[in-house]
Amino acid sequence: MSLVKAPDNILIPTSKIDLDKIRNKQIHLFIIGHGQVGGLLIDQLIAEREKLKRRRRIDLAVVAVANSSTVLFDKDGLDKDWRSRKQEQGESYTIPQLIERAHRHGLYNTIMVDNTASPSFVLNYLPFIEAGFSLVSSNKVANTLGMEFYENLRERLAKRQQDYLYETNVGAGLPLIDTIKLLHLSGENITQIRGVFSGSLSYIFNRFSAEQIAFHKVLEAAIAKGYTEPDPREDLCGNDVARKLLILARELALHCEFDEVAVENLIPEPLRGLPTTAFLDDLPALDAHFESVRACCDKDEVLRYVATLDGDLADDFGAQMFVRLEAVPKNSMLGQLQGSDSIFEIYTESYGSNPIVIQGAGAGPQVTARGVFGDILRISERVSA
Amino acid sequence: MSLVKAPDNILIPTSKIDLDKIRNKQIHLFIIGHGQVGGLLIDQLIAEREKLKRRRRIDLAVVAVANSSTVLFDKDGLDKDWRSRKQEQGESYTIPQLIERAHRHGLYNTIMVDNTASPSFVLNYLPFIEAGFSLVSSNKVANTLGMEFYENLRERLAKRQQDYLYETNVGAGLPLIDTIKLLHLSGENITQIRGVFSGSLSYIFNRFSAEQIAFHKVLEAAIAKGYTEPDPREDLCGNDVARKLLILARELALHCEFDEVAVENLIPEPLRGLPTTAFLDDLPALDAHFESVRACCDKDEVLRYVATLDGDLADDFGAQMFVRLEAVPKNSMLGQLQGSDSIFEIYTESYGSNPIVIQGAGAGPQVTARGVFGDILRISERVSA
Repeated sequence: MSLVKAPDNILIPTSKIDLDKIRNKQIHLFIIGHGQVGGLLIDQLIAEREKLKRRRRIDLAVVAVANSSTVLFDKDGLDKDWRSRKQEQGESYTIPQLIERAHRHGLYNTIMVDNTASPSFVLNYLPFIEAGFSLVSSNKVANTLGMEFYENLRERLAKRQQDYLYETNVGAGLPLIDTIKLLHLSGENITQIRGVFSGSLSYIFNRFSAEQIAFHKVLEAAIAKGYTEPDPREDLCGNDVARKLLILARELALHCEFDEVAVENLIPEPLRGLPTTAFLDDLPALDAHFESVRACCDKDEVLRYVATLDGDLADDFGAQMFVRLEAVPKNSMLGQLQGSDSIFEIYTESYGSNPIVIQGAGAGPQVTARGVFGDILRISERVSA
Repeated sequence: MSLVKAPDNILIPTSKIDLDKIRNKQIHLFIIGHGQVGGLLIDQLIAEREKLKRRRRIDLAVVAVANSSTVLFDKDGLDKDWRSRKQEQGESYTIPQLIERAHRHGLYNTIMVDNTASPSFVLNYLPFIEAGFSLVSSNKVANTLGMEFYENLRERLAKRQQDYLYETNVGAGLPLIDTIKLLHLSGENITQIRGVFSGSLSYIFNRFSAEQIAFHKVLEAAIAKGYTEPDPREDLCGNDVARKLLILARELALHCEFDEVAVENLIPEPLRGLPTTAFLDDLPALDAHFESVRACCDKDEVLRYVATLDGDLADDFGAQMFVRLEAVPKNSMLGQLQGSDSIFEIYTESYGSNPIVIQGAGAGPQVTARGVFGDILRISERVSA
């Protein structure tokens, strides 16, 4: 092999490139939902637009912002005053009208960003795909419906060679789904995924295990910090953790449905049917149950609400999925968890008994919005100029 | 907003798509270096080729395998017998000849993968870029030369809209560089990066801190396990850790050079100039120094060889980079590290005082090869069909 000989200090003389002459890649964003995550995202996108043009030659224009009632559209991209403009100039719309508008203005490289939590909005994914949009979503619904919907969506995307990214569905801004997807696609045998997937349940059991304090006191603190849903039973029932586990399992091409996840509902039977206010008015009713659970722990153990995927993961139908309260060794990674962090352990053949561990804030509007931004950047790097 | 009404069980009837009619994306790989990492990578690529076509419509063909003396070329993609074929049919070559061959066969979507550790081979990156190749590299050299080379390389890539990925330069298969890059590009203010970046030094100080054992005994165990370079002073001098820290700092668009990293060389002065065999024959000569260091630790502290990036990271020239032996609290994330794991803490504004933590095997041929494979997949998703 003939090589250019390296001088002691390797420097190749080159003519300076005029970067201004390199064309920007135009990306047109349609943001649906501008609540906490959506609103922050739009602000972030607008704040970074100039820097991204300069650094990456990517021009991210927010051309539409919509919620369930109105849309604000600007083909050149909205600016910092989008909130007041939307209030004044927002128009009612239908999805076909929105798509038609993209076409009328000849917008290419279009991405629809779903920051709603709407169970029905995902029905609009298909018309957006057919109209040439890529998708980014922080909404978990499309990935937790039946396999038929799940696979149909992916086949449509494959057919049109469009992307659908949803990194924030699990662990907010933590790099989980991309990591698992790349490992799986590169043929790495993933043998188990395990962790504490919920920030609120992390906080609750980290404190409850570490301090001699009544369960309802810890729950009250979690509510006060805004870690739980308005009705904390939505966290305590385990369904949100189960949805995240299902999403990860499907990344491994496993055929599995929501009702196959064995979920331990942490709400004692008699309290499940109560109206929210009645439940919130009598939180000490939870104490007896959790006191008895804590009493079962050895002194070297702590309680964690753990999601586990294992089974014969090489078999399409081999997934076993558990979400349950477990006593884990204090000195394990899960046992050392603190605050409201989430933790994910990914076991694979090459990594052996020492998993890849990813830990950090797995929820919160700021980190979720950055995660959605990351997905938009990933797609932007894939589309052509 | 008018929505398609969702039935109770959301299922959209659709005609079945014939996925076989969707065209595969052809990718042509030129792999330079087929030692441990390169050889494993080629085997992995060949083993996964059919599955990737089926699952992602990506056809990864290894069309050239080269080392410093010969190349084996096959425009249709090599198969499992590449080792014996290379032995028999490998031809001597020059880089211009290799590039010319790609052109003669009309190969598009070409990626050059550098799995060498060669300091001079990186000079060939520019001709490959000019010839339309994207680059993937496990070789750290191109990212640790002077800023002039570093920036020139990126400007050339930007001009031609080609990619250069090197996830395995830091933390092997752990998702570090992509995570840091996306956070930075999305405007997240990264305030500090800190961790134990070396698997060998992790193992050495984890054991040395936990057990009352002579330093040379731990070092011998690390050598026996193959965790160190043949001359372990290459690990103990700290330069490899410093290179990784420099690479991460530059991901934040910081202007910084290798000689700005303050590196604590762990080899006592008198032992630095010895020939390798003389050094290896008298490892107990290291004991006195490390015994005195261990004696300085409080009982709640352990020793870790820590890399830290901080300073005013919003200022292009504000980076402060340290690589040194530190006494850290036993119950901190760094203090709890075990085995030969690497750990990386990424502090940002949104994540506050609880960093994103990524931990796992940060070295080893198997996990490094999977990491390179991941980079190839990332680029494959970006190029057009």
